[in-house]
Amino acid sequence: MSNFTVVETETLQQGITRLFGGDSTISESTPVAGGCINQGRRLRLSTGTTLFCKKNTLENEGMFLAEAQGLAALIGLCSRVAGPRVPEPVGLIQTAHNQYLLLEWIDTGRKTLRSTQEFAVALAALHSAVVTTDELPGSVPRAAADETVPIPEAGSPVRQYGFVGNNYIGSTPQINTWNTSWVDFFARHRLGYQLDLARRNGLTNSSMLTLADAVLQRLPELLPEPDHPSMLHGDLWSGNIMVDAHGSMVLIDPAVYLGHYEADLAMMELFGSPGPSFYEAYEHTAPLEPGYEDRRELYNLYHLLNHLNLFGGSYRGSVMRVLERFS
Amino acid sequence: MSNFTVVETETLQQGITRLFGGDSTISESTPVAGGCINQGRRLRLSTGTTLFCKKNTLENEGMFLAEAQGLAALIGLCSRVAGPRVPEPVGLIQTAHNQYLLLEWIDTGRKTLRSTQEFAVALAALHSAVVTTDELPGSVPRAAADETVPIPEAGSPVRQYGFVGNNYIGSTPQINTWNTSWVDFFARHRLGYQLDLARRNGLTNSSMLTLADAVLQRLPELLPEPDHPSMLHGDLWSGNIMVDAHGSMVLIDPAVYLGHYEADLAMMELFGSPGPSFYEAYEHTAPLEPGYEDRRELYNLYHLLNHLNLFGGSYRGSVMRVLERFS
Repeated sequence: MSNFTVVETETLQQGITRLFGGDSTISESTPVAGGCINQGRRLRLSTGTTLFCKKNTLENEGMFLAEAQGLAALIGLCSRVAGPRVPEPVGLIQTAHNQYLLLEWIDTGRKTLRSTQEFAVALAALHSAVVTTDELPGSVPRAAADETVPIPEAGSPVRQYGFVGNNYIGSTPQINTWNTSWVDFFARHRLGYQLDLARRNGLTNSSMLTLADAVLQRLPELLPEPDHPSMLHGDLWSGNIMVDAHGSMVLIDPAVYLGHYEADLAMMELFGSPGPSFYEAYEHTAPLEPGYEDRRELYNLYHLLNHLNLFGGSYRGSVMRVLERFS
Repeated sequence: MSNFTVVETETLQQGITRLFGGDSTISESTPVAGGCINQGRRLRLSTGTTLFCKKNTLENEGMFLAEAQGLAALIGLCSRVAGPRVPEPVGLIQTAHNQYLLLEWIDTGRKTLRSTQEFAVALAALHSAVVTTDELPGSVPRAAADETVPIPEAGSPVRQYGFVGNNYIGSTPQINTWNTSWVDFFARHRLGYQLDLARRNGLTNSSMLTLADAVLQRLPELLPEPDHPSMLHGDLWSGNIMVDAHGSMVLIDPAVYLGHYEADLAMMELFGSPGPSFYEAYEHTAPLEPGYEDRRELYNLYHLLNHLNLFGGSYRGSVMRVLERFS
């Protein structure tokens, strides 16, 4: 994140001037749809630069920093291993009441027959990479770790699951406390955290909690420990995959952490599947382990629980079906 | 297609002036990716209008007219039944060597959680509509009909399968000769036509042709006749579904004809599925018939054969697998 700067100013315009030099003014500002939580705009600067600008209130201060950190982590690794394209975070401007995340503008184009295949190969390369602590943004030790789990040491391959800081899945906090066991990490910080939240939100009942307990107990037999932690996008539904002007698929809005790559693949199927040509190309680089189709639902239970927490009761049926299947 | 005009001029600029009035000039022309066959550009006019412009050589004369006709048919019906958004064809400019299809510019945005559900409901509404001949573009009688099949009469519901003219699936001609039987239509003008083409292209062998004969023989027991002919997009893979600035899905590049709606749904799954939330919402409007999952592959055999013809041997394996399954 060498080029990423955080500036505090009175107005967005002043922030732009600080980031891009004295001549830079906003010559055009157009609303852009997308993103349920933030308000997006395309900014054209007098210098010719075009930016994507997301606005949020200052209360959600950590959200944009976490996003920029996740993007930076993906960009670094993707450039080493020929992973998917990721928009570059350019800067964060904080005013008295608002904050603005500035990202590289991506001109959108149309999918070609090659788009999916090339994306599959790139994603498999990202997932196959062994990440070293040098490739994690920020200072690694500031992240918390479960009990006696050692925090990754500088310069070594990361053998833990988690990330250098928490981030968000939608607007729900996503806990990335380091843990040496993927299954324990997923039980505590993914399913367990969302279940607690649902309970506190009054969205559970006793049968849901009983089933959920049973699933959490069975988790070590249901889920395998991966070969190595993979850098995950973390929120890889189809709405977070853009197509750029060259027809390449671009990863946006990540909720990055190190985990089992199957969790990323599963999320891609929650609201629409990438199709057989994706898997053929992915498996050419990184063959799937048997039983992935069964585990997929279990990994997506995390997102269903999150949707239950974010959007309420209409997700209860889907949650219950998965709990009944695996309890 | 009341606003659609075809003009012959020396240059694209002259055509723009003819279509949009004496003051209109092209102030900006930017290449836009997408579309394997045509070269796309975004044109900004001095009047402020933005257009999507597709260029092709004059040899493929019928291609753009067929596309405009298909778009017009979809727009008419979609406006009556609250179907999906479709870009409006604005005009066709023919110069000495080239032709330019001008379409309404669609600002692209991002998928939201609602995008797929709303699209599913809109597509189900399109598929459920009974089309009358008034809603078909051009003069109906100019289309050919198989043997003694009556050409649809003006003002009446269309009970035939086909369209007012042939069009293209990719760059392959798609034959839309009217036929009162869906199964016979699909056997002759979809599977049969592509098989003939593959044979003439030297892409078949005797085992493929034997299996294909067996499948064509079995077709009346494998496929049902629909309740009524549905207006189909005809080439509904994910690359032909854009997301507009409001997060709504937009149908582009159609290969329109009247057929069984399952053929449209099947194509949506060939290179990636719309996911369970799509089907839940679709079935809320138009429940699927049992056995669709089996028929899906058979409908997609048409597109696999077309890909065999367009892109060659790498599709032979997929074609053979489907033929073996249904022969």
